[in-house]
Amino acid sequence: MPFAELVALLTRIFLGQGLPERTAQVLATNCATCQRDGGFSHGVFRIPAYVSTLQSGWGNPQALPVIEDDGGTLIRVDAQGGFAQVALDEARPLLRARVEAQGVAVLAIRNSQHFSALWPDVEPFAEEGLVALSVVNSMAVVVPPGGKTPVFGTNPMAFACPRAGQAPYVWDQASSALAHGDVQIAAREGHRLAPGTGVDAEGRPTDDPGAILNGGALLPFGGHKGASIAMTIEILSAAFTGGAFSTEVDWSQHPGAKIPLTGQFLLVADPDRGGDLGFAQRVAALSDTVRDAGQDRLPGDRRQRLRAESAAKGVPLSQADLDMLNGYL
Amino acid sequence: MPFAELVALLTRIFLGQGLPERTAQVLATNCATCQRDGGFSHGVFRIPAYVSTLQSGWGNPQALPVIEDDGGTLIRVDAQGGFAQVALDEARPLLRARVEAQGVAVLAIRNSQHFSALWPDVEPFAEEGLVALSVVNSMAVVVPPGGKTPVFGTNPMAFACPRAGQAPYVWDQASSALAHGDVQIAAREGHRLAPGTGVDAEGRPTDDPGAILNGGALLPFGGHKGASIAMTIEILSAAFTGGAFSTEVDWSQHPGAKIPLTGQFLLVADPDRGGDLGFAQRVAALSDTVRDAGQDRLPGDRRQRLRAESAAKGVPLSQADLDMLNGYL
Repeated sequence: MPFAELVALLTRIFLGQGLPERTAQVLATNCATCQRDGGFSHGVFRIPAYVSTLQSGWGNPQALPVIEDDGGTLIRVDAQGGFAQVALDEARPLLRARVEAQGVAVLAIRNSQHFSALWPDVEPFAEEGLVALSVVNSMAVVVPPGGKTPVFGTNPMAFACPRAGQAPYVWDQASSALAHGDVQIAAREGHRLAPGTGVDAEGRPTDDPGAILNGGALLPFGGHKGASIAMTIEILSAAFTGGAFSTEVDWSQHPGAKIPLTGQFLLVADPDRGGDLGFAQRVAALSDTVRDAGQDRLPGDRRQRLRAESAAKGVPLSQADLDMLNGYL
Repeated sequence: MPFAELVALLTRIFLGQGLPERTAQVLATNCATCQRDGGFSHGVFRIPAYVSTLQSGWGNPQALPVIEDDGGTLIRVDAQGGFAQVALDEARPLLRARVEAQGVAVLAIRNSQHFSALWPDVEPFAEEGLVALSVVNSMAVVVPPGGKTPVFGTNPMAFACPRAGQAPYVWDQASSALAHGDVQIAAREGHRLAPGTGVDAEGRPTDDPGAILNGGALLPFGGHKGASIAMTIEILSAAFTGGAFSTEVDWSQHPGAKIPLTGQFLLVADPDRGGDLGFAQRVAALSDTVRDAGQDRLPGDRRQRLRAESAAKGVPLSQADLDMLNGYL
């Protein structure tokens, strides 16, 4: 399906769930973008969970984000229980203006639901020549090293910056050793996991995806170093923004798909502020250096390839996807 | 030796090498702080290398950093070939003022040498109630995954923030799987290294520290995820600041100890801007949660313990340390 057609279809589905026009457009574009670029776990696969959550009244689909602007470079937004992407969309013009005026600014979103990939939040800034770094926390499914009680979310971090003559350099990675969805896939397909992926219900290291899913938990990537990053993402996404920690998400009244209400931190900076240092050219040169040194694939390469394929042949959708989507119309 | 006495001794040594008064004080305090807190590889152990570099004329010991202030929240500093700590010291009042006025600001230092731990750069901000994140690049000793040519420095990242009723939460970690000094120690003591630490001269994975040191290289921590972080540290420390990439450090004219001339990126933000969200209390609560979940030691715990021991009994110095230091007076 052509990208624009998929966006229109998803927008209709969201409007049908009672979302305001702008909210429906933002979520539809985000979801279609993930599907287009091969991020299928954040693509149309998520529509039933969106619908379940919206119908259940968990969170606040009618939320209109409230921007708290005191004229500085730290802009706070109360998402009012709505989706973080909508809060970012609402605050973007002010954030851009503040970066233009000052060189660096931060957006701190709280009371927000983030139910998608993080890279779509940062990539557009890189396309405008800016550097963006964002982190978001979620629900506690990751134990600290040596622990048995989950305290961190899969807590992704994403980074984007311009790269002359190439697509922006963009990455988005969980601070858990593996994405939760990949553990579910391994369990379904009967695969064992790499050492260091997770622990069982007793806190013992395990390579059994079933043990991780049944009372166990994931570990941070990269041992203690990854744990520092996971904890810092909690601090920036929740303590700094005023959002909930991953352990504080209150599921007691939760009726729909599990979408945590937490926070998001986003730093945007202008690399050309103070004179042209050839930033985008140097990032391109560094990318070439890293490829020449032997790293076959840089973050984002696969996404770019699939995006080009989608542009040429349409966004891939299975018959089951189509049937599911049409069922909501 | 009492901390103040060690600072005075090191200051005399640096003054004897012809450094300006303020530069000598900044470097002496930094070096003594590392020694005091158990960071021995960045403590008085480094004095001979400082002296060798200063005597050789590598870099610019007389450097007076030039601050480029255009009134915004991105403050650039040309360290003029001097030490990054001196540039930070010089720019600190302006950086603090900009954070107070705006909420968030970034310091971008270029043409700087960073020859110490990174945590002493961020911890003081946390003691003032602020959040600080810094990265610095160095010389190319880390290969990307699948590669055999080093392109990244050990590229540390450090983070600090206040924590109510406890010492600030502070960490400082290389983006390499292991510190270069630890590989040298393993080689000397005949230890094997953990899988994923490094590669030999042919780019093959090895657990032999000698193979890493003799034409081989380190790997990033945490596989591809750590590699993204290592590359992003290059981008922020070098491309963003206008400093040299780790691969661009020109050793051809280098006569002294190997201290690369690169760049440093430092973000400082006020977590209480826009109303008191109880930031420091929540970070303390999160620390307790993580400990309760089973992580025995949080980053900085060892440093705090050794700092307290040094306060009670004096900063530890061996007889060999003392003889070496006295030899420079």
